[in-house]
Amino acid sequence: MKIDVCFSPALYPYYKEDGETIVVVVDIFRATTSMCMALNNGAASIIPVATVEEAKAYKDKGYLVGGERNVVKFEFGDFGNTPSEYTREKVEGKDVVISTTNGTHAIDMAEDCSCLIIGSFSNISAVADFCISQQKNVLVLCAGWKDKFNLEDTLFGGALTEILVQKGGYNAHFDAAGVALSMWKDAKSDIMKYIANGEHMKRLEAHNLIDVADFCVTSDTVKVLPVYDKKTKKITVL
Amino acid sequence: MKIDVCFSPALYPYYKEDGETIVVVVDIFRATTSMCMALNNGAASIIPVATVEEAKAYKDKGYLVGGERNVVKFEFGDFGNTPSEYTREKVEGKDVVISTTNGTHAIDMAEDCSCLIIGSFSNISAVADFCISQQKNVLVLCAGWKDKFNLEDTLFGGALTEILVQKGGYNAHFDAAGVALSMWKDAKSDIMKYIANGEHMKRLEAHNLIDVADFCVTSDTVKVLPVYDKKTKKITVL
Repeated sequence: MKIDVCFSPALYPYYKEDGETIVVVVDIFRATTSMCMALNNGAASIIPVATVEEAKAYKDKGYLVGGERNVVKFEFGDFGNTPSEYTREKVEGKDVVISTTNGTHAIDMAEDCSCLIIGSFSNISAVADFCISQQKNVLVLCAGWKDKFNLEDTLFGGALTEILVQKGGYNAHFDAAGVALSMWKDAKSDIMKYIANGEHMKRLEAHNLIDVADFCVTSDTVKVLPVYDKKTKKITVL
Repeated sequence: MKIDVCFSPALYPYYKEDGETIVVVVDIFRATTSMCMALNNGAASIIPVATVEEAKAYKDKGYLVGGERNVVKFEFGDFGNTPSEYTREKVEGKDVVISTTNGTHAIDMAEDCSCLIIGSFSNISAVADFCISQQKNVLVLCAGWKDKFNLEDTLFGGALTEILVQKGGYNAHFDAAGVALSMWKDAKSDIMKYIANGEHMKRLEAHNLIDVADFCVTSDTVKVLPVYDKKTKKITVL
């Protein structure tokens, strides 16, 4: 099996493959980390929607709604895009609608694939175990920032590559997965230092969200494996 | 000033900026290296065309035509895509039409920008000197491979970033230029070793083109600065 990393939703058409490749959508800061947290705290499902209008329509129907545009929480939202907001008290047993600048866009791009799962550092071992158990090719789809390359999602791609190569006998597909792996090897001893110059860290700093960043690059804080069902358009725990 | 690196023609819409940014199109293996060689050997101009049909139409009108699709030379072509084919004897004083899998596609994507120049390791100092003399922002547009990320074009982006930061006082724009620079620092002591696992090296090996690869990653073998004129749609030496 092989693992590759697609650096942007806009590149997905060139990386997608027919067949049974597992697509791992990742938006470390912060959509997929928040989704993992909400599901780990008992949310019945996540309903990812691409537009603010759809999110507002769900809110008007009585759903819990979270997310952001350009790092700022929706005025009508129950949650922003910070994992710790999705507490068990608020989300247990509920369907939670989420729309974000990048993460839900990436899900939207890949929703026709045969198996779409949600990855973050917070559930990276659950993701790796699932991939290895399935014995299928893996494509990490980085949400990026407005279709541009970013550090943190690519680092997740490198970290997952390292695990799948070491534990699952996968091959890292050059050129992208090889570079992601190399970045991860440079970064893993001090991830916050590595990403300190990244564009998204500057955005998070500007909104006093540095502590959130630290949490978002911490591995294995939850054990859930969120899977997207293209029929119901919901993400639930496997 | 800042320098950024766009990893694929498909990402160019998200990286392009209004104003006077210099776009450096790079396709190390082998289109932009061949263009630099042809112009250094006295070609009057390069006419880049996106499709094989256009290339054939020029051939029928009596032009010299070079290029390839999927590494294979056109049946009707005067040249393939190997720099050493573009000898002074053949090209001096002539307009040369070139169409390649990736390089001419990248030019096509960016042709509306205010200043498009052709970069390769073979003319990297000429490119750097021009950028610094213009005191404008720089965007390296990697031709990639069928819109996917590749190592060699990104390494050029890192190498140019290093020069512009050190000699021109430029800022490397994270996240992409920072990663390209980091890759270049890892690679520069032995570029051929660094790219040995790259996808394009495998394609070149399969066509006995390893020596060509070695030439294509060698810096400053020519001194020309090729500039694209969007009115005439020709590339000539500044």
